[in-house]
Order: sequence, then structure tokens, then C-alpha cells
Amino acid sequence: MVSSQVVNTYPLSSYTFGTKEPKMEKDTSVADRLARMKVNYMKEGMRTSVEGILLVQEHNHPHILLLQIGNTFCKLPGGRLKPGENEIEGLKRKLTSKLGANSQALVPDWQIGECVAIWWRPNFETIMYPYCPPHITKPKECKKLFLVHLSEREYFAVPKNLKLLAVPLFELYDNVQRYGPVISTIPQQLSRFQFKMITN
Amino acid sequence: MVSSQVVNTYPLSSYTFGTKEPKMEKDTSVADRLARMKVNYMKEGMRTSVEGILLVQEHNHPHILLLQIGNTFCKLPGGRLKPGENEIEGLKRKLTSKLGANSQALVPDWQIGECVAIWWRPNFETIMYPYCPPHITKPKECKKLFLVHLSEREYFAVPKNLKLLAVPLFELYDNVQRYGPVISTIPQQLSRFQFKMITN
Repeated sequence: MVSSQVVNTYPLSSYTFGTKEPKMEKDTSVADRLARMKVNYMKEGMRTSVEGILLVQEHNHPHILLLQIGNTFCKLPGGRLKPGENEIEGLKRKLTSKLGANSQALVPDWQIGECVAIWWRPNFETIMYPYCPPHITKPKECKKLFLVHLSEREYFAVPKNLKLLAVPLFELYDNVQRYGPVISTIPQQLSRFQFKMITN
Repeated sequence: MVSSQVVNTYPLSSYTFGTKEPKMEKDTSVADRLARMKVNYMKEGMRTSVEGILLVQEHNHPHILLLQIGNTFCKLPGGRLKPGENEIEGLKRKLTSKLGANSQALVPDWQIGECVAIWWRPNFETIMYPYCPPHITKPKECKKLFLVHLSEREYFAVPKNLKLLAVPLFELYDNVQRYGPVISTIPQQLSRFQFKMITN
């Protein structure tokens, strides 16, 4: 029985940020995205996606790294698993694709930690739930969020079309309008951890 | 690294419910409650409270046991620890006080599981946060929610002035108006678990 788990959290200033070639979104609209999801479902069955929660600290308060597309939409780094792919290996692959340098030697040695939330998409629609709703026998997507334990120093290469933001928990909390239901309840899902704020 | 944990969940019909003497609320208003909290803080320092999430299933969907006071207000079974009291032992004591039979032999052998959320009260006010807000060095309350693993058969004795409800996750989700910020985000905090629905 573990009632509190300690997560080391390093200052944002410990990390170095560079840029790399753009990673364009595969879809240009929500409708396109749902249509592509449907085509993939027919071929491969339920989509499983994995996303990483990367934590840093500023002013002794935990912040989460989010990728911003355009001026409003924010997402966690991650993406869709290949059919049959292991979720931990798949998340490492996706984190490297989104945030790793082109030079392999500079890519972080991703330490994937606890699964903190699982969301289900019952239909080819945007709405997801933190449970598989009753009477849904064939959900269309399962999305798993994992804590990623960062080392004290890392280099992140951010695709040129995206911005990497460090957003404090107090900004995410109770802010479904800005961040959506998945990201805005990350503070609740992380509340059981004790963040050990390490300063340089 | 644990990415999914299995929680056995038994039908509501497995359990037996009786009644016992009323457990009156110590305060008759929110203002009284906050005033009493302040007096206790002066004597004993930060209040630590513990609450239990007791799960049952109906129609293969997880339900949570909530105590209803009057016609609207719902709360998890639990309460305040005594100064220095162990949180697991304190939660067992509170569960017995709220839901245990007067005959010791009928009281469930409470199996306290994972801490799923921790909430902080920065001031003598009703608002709580799933983190200790920046610049708050002396929070007034820390509330911890634990999963309670029920056995296949149990007897619960419900105080006569309260009702015990089994509320489905889909009713709690996104329903902050009815259940408040703590209870309405329990579905998100439980989403990482896999519920094994056991039928009789």
C-alpha cells in the first residue's frame, strides 16, 4: 500500500530547448480527424494512444510541458500506438518524435512512470470519458496518460510549428474551457504524488 | 511500473444494509463548520481528514457509496484524524463509526487501498485545491481519499439520519454542481484502475 509517492521535480531552467523541422498535424480539421480515425478503426480496430506528463517546477510549483499548436490548442506529447506495439515503447517513440533531438545521443533516456489516467472514446466523436460508458462494447479509442520522470538535465528539440509551454497546475485546474477535460483534470490525477522540488 | 491495477467489484446486491442510531453533524451551518475548524487549528494545527471510496457494481458499471445528508448534500464516509493518528487506522475507525454495525463481529475488516487524491484547504474557507497553492505555507486542512477494497459480502449499518446511495461513475462525472469538486472528479482519479466486475 503506497499512500504517497515522491516525484523529483527540477527547475525549468535545468532544461535546454532547441528547435527542429516542423511536425505537421495529419488533419486540418476535427471532421478530417474523426474521418481518418474511422478509416483506421476499420483496418486496425480500437485506437490506443499514449501521452506523457512531463513535469518541471518554477517558484516551487509543478508545471506541465504542453505543446501548443497555433494560438490556442494545447496537447500533451504522445500519439497513437502501432497495432500490437507495447505502450511504454510506443510512448518513448512518440516522445522522441515530438521532443527528441535529431542526434540520437541528445535524445532523453525517457523514464516512463505511473499510468495516471485512462480515457475512452465511445464513438467517432470528440467526447471522451474517464470510464468506458455502460452498453459500449466497442470503444473507438483508449488514451492512456503516463507520468514521465525527467532527469536533472535534458535537451528538448521542439518542432518549429509548435511551441512548448510550461503550464502551472493552478492554471490547468478548473480550466476546462481552455485546456479541455483531459488536460484540465491532470492536477487532480497528480494530487496523490508528493513533488520534491529540487533547486540547482 | 504498474500501468493497470485490477480492483474486484461486487454487485450491490451482495451487500446487506441495516440502520443504527443517528450520527448528527457537528455543525449546523458552513459558517459554524469553518469557525470550529479555526478553533481546532489553533489547538492542534493542520487538520488531516481521510475519506474512503467504497465501490460496488450494477449493470457492470462501477458505483460509489455516498452518504446523503438531507435531500442534497452527499459526502464520502470518513472524517478527521486525531492529532498524531495513523491515517490508515484513522480511516478504519471513521468507516466503522459511519458504516459499521454496533456488534463488532459484524464490522467489515476494512481493507484500505491506494491513495487516489489529496486535496488542500489553504484558508478557513470552503474552497480546496488538488495541490497546495503557491505561497501557502500553512494550509489549514489536508484531505486524503483512499480506495477501500470491499469483500464479497459485508453488512453496513447506516445512521438513521443519513441515506447510503450507490452512485454510478457516469452520474458523478462532470457534475460539479451536484457533487462538488472533490467527488465529481473521482471518476478521473479511478480511471487508471481496471474494474473486474464479479457477478454472483
